[in-house]
Amino acid sequence: MPTEIFLQSPLDMHIHFREGAMLDLVAPLSAETFAGGVIMPNLVPPVADLERLEWYTGEVRRAVGDHVFTPYMALFFRNYSEADLAAVRESIIGIKLYPEGVTTNSEGGVKSVSDAEQTMAMMQDMDIPLLVHGEVPESFVMDRESDFLPTYDELAQKFPRLKIIMEHITTAAAVKLLDRYENVHATVTLQHLLITLDDVAGGLLNPHLFCKPIAKRPEDRDALLHAALTAHPKLMFGSDSAPHPLEKKECCGCAAGVFTAPVALAMLAELFDAHDALDKLQAFVSGNAQSIYGLTPPAKTVHLVKEPCTVPAKYGDVVPIRSGGEIGWRVV
Amino acid sequence: MPTEIFLQSPLDMHIHFREGAMLDLVAPLSAETFAGGVIMPNLVPPVADLERLEWYTGEVRRAVGDHVFTPYMALFFRNYSEADLAAVRESIIGIKLYPEGVTTNSEGGVKSVSDAEQTMAMMQDMDIPLLVHGEVPESFVMDRESDFLPTYDELAQKFPRLKIIMEHITTAAAVKLLDRYENVHATVTLQHLLITLDDVAGGLLNPHLFCKPIAKRPEDRDALLHAALTAHPKLMFGSDSAPHPLEKKECCGCAAGVFTAPVALAMLAELFDAHDALDKLQAFVSGNAQSIYGLTPPAKTVHLVKEPCTVPAKYGDVVPIRSGGEIGWRVV
Repeated sequence: MPTEIFLQSPLDMHIHFREGAMLDLVAPLSAETFAGGVIMPNLVPPVADLERLEWYTGEVRRAVGDHVFTPYMALFFRNYSEADLAAVRESIIGIKLYPEGVTTNSEGGVKSVSDAEQTMAMMQDMDIPLLVHGEVPESFVMDRESDFLPTYDELAQKFPRLKIIMEHITTAAAVKLLDRYENVHATVTLQHLLITLDDVAGGLLNPHLFCKPIAKRPEDRDALLHAALTAHPKLMFGSDSAPHPLEKKECCGCAAGVFTAPVALAMLAELFDAHDALDKLQAFVSGNAQSIYGLTPPAKTVHLVKEPCTVPAKYGDVVPIRSGGEIGWRVV
Repeated sequence: MPTEIFLQSPLDMHIHFREGAMLDLVAPLSAETFAGGVIMPNLVPPVADLERLEWYTGEVRRAVGDHVFTPYMALFFRNYSEADLAAVRESIIGIKLYPEGVTTNSEGGVKSVSDAEQTMAMMQDMDIPLLVHGEVPESFVMDRESDFLPTYDELAQKFPRLKIIMEHITTAAAVKLLDRYENVHATVTLQHLLITLDDVAGGLLNPHLFCKPIAKRPEDRDALLHAALTAHPKLMFGSDSAPHPLEKKECCGCAAGVFTAPVALAMLAELFDAHDALDKLQAFVSGNAQSIYGLTPPAKTVHLVKEPCTVPAKYGDVVPIRSGGEIGWRVV
């Protein structure tokens, strides 16, 4: 049984860095162990034009500091002109579509996918990937993702050369959809490989495991875990790590998001080790993303050993997953 | 359209009064508007012998004070002897069965229903109703009640003269089960007539609407509401009002329970009025319970008028349902 592993250029293909003091807190925590990450654009206002993109990219680079870490910037979806897209093309990894009101700071999102097709057609022609928060906000919370899946069918067929990423998938049905279309890919978070709604609300209510899309049923978690542990080539790790200060979590009106980035690699090593699948971890946390996006991340070797470490109770005022608990692996 | 209603002897057939300072806070709030209630026995230790029953009955009566309010005491299920049952028979309305570990203070509950059958047979012979928290604790949280329903089938058939109350039902399937057996009845809470899991976790997470059994799907809520609004004769109002101090709700590890008792009648009047069903409210909040249990509550007339009132932010340190919000009806 391996007691250490060397990961080459691990990537977090879905990460919330926020801005200001929160950015300064969380960006270095990701940059310590990852070689790059896809930075989500749902600020207030969203990152939805070249000027704001350039400002935010600069902010992220400043916060990352001297760490070897490439921020892959995502633009917030709106209906863009061809000139808009041409201007940002070289500065972004893709464009992130949020249905209106579906999660934190998605209020300026898309009301109807059909209104967005002209921009999608141009994205297809310009080879700009479409990253999608795939939930129907009006649906019952446990059905929001499965109700959105027909939209993926529609998009995949209508734009067969558009690279579509189903972000943070949470259902067995979404895993199945990966095999239906060549141009459909997905990210999955750490928590959705580990938990179900039982962990959020089955015993005492745990606000720190509350996120959108909400954790689903055991059979959904099992399907996601199986796909990750077998390094399904169309599935990438994307933490969706989403920091909120303690007072926004342990309150009435708890914000959605689980903060996992600083411990994600250690917990993934623990999880893959527990399932005798450590040999699949490199593909899951980097190789698949490189193939799907056609990117070459900076060289960075992360050394993990099978030794217990204790998770801090908090990073600043943000409570991480498994706060105060133990992980069986640690980054050296 | 009626703008006032007079309810005769409204009853809350499932209520948590706790003990000590919390009892002193909440018992008068129920006793102000209800003529009686079924008092749950899940204290620590549970109310599971004559001595503790007599002590708790005295505590409840003391806390109720001069209000016209009859506490109908429920005993905590364990395997009792015939002598035990004979001794408590006149002091209780029924015996409450909790599967082990299913909710607040249910740790001493029943591990297997088959172990409990001897006591149930004696209860049937002595005409002692069986009140059941019908959830399978090991099941996925959304399935715990539906997975328990076959146990009701089994009990109803094995003990056809045992009065069985499915407490705080939350699913359409449980409503259907009411019509399958003559000896099966149910209570339903205020919140399960109003909310779904969407209200708990569909937007921001709301710990004050978190309870066990957890609120289910829209079609479940609709079936419960239809049964209540039509005053299904086997369905009784039981608030399951469960006070927890604020710090046990807005925290990591939020306790299960919604505090509804002080505003329950006003909110029920509002709800039934909104559905043009005020004429069914008397049966739902008193008549059905009287028929099912064969009880005659003390005379008490509660006058409600269609005038807005504001719900207090807190009662003591307990946050009620619709805290700080408005109700379209109020008790005069």
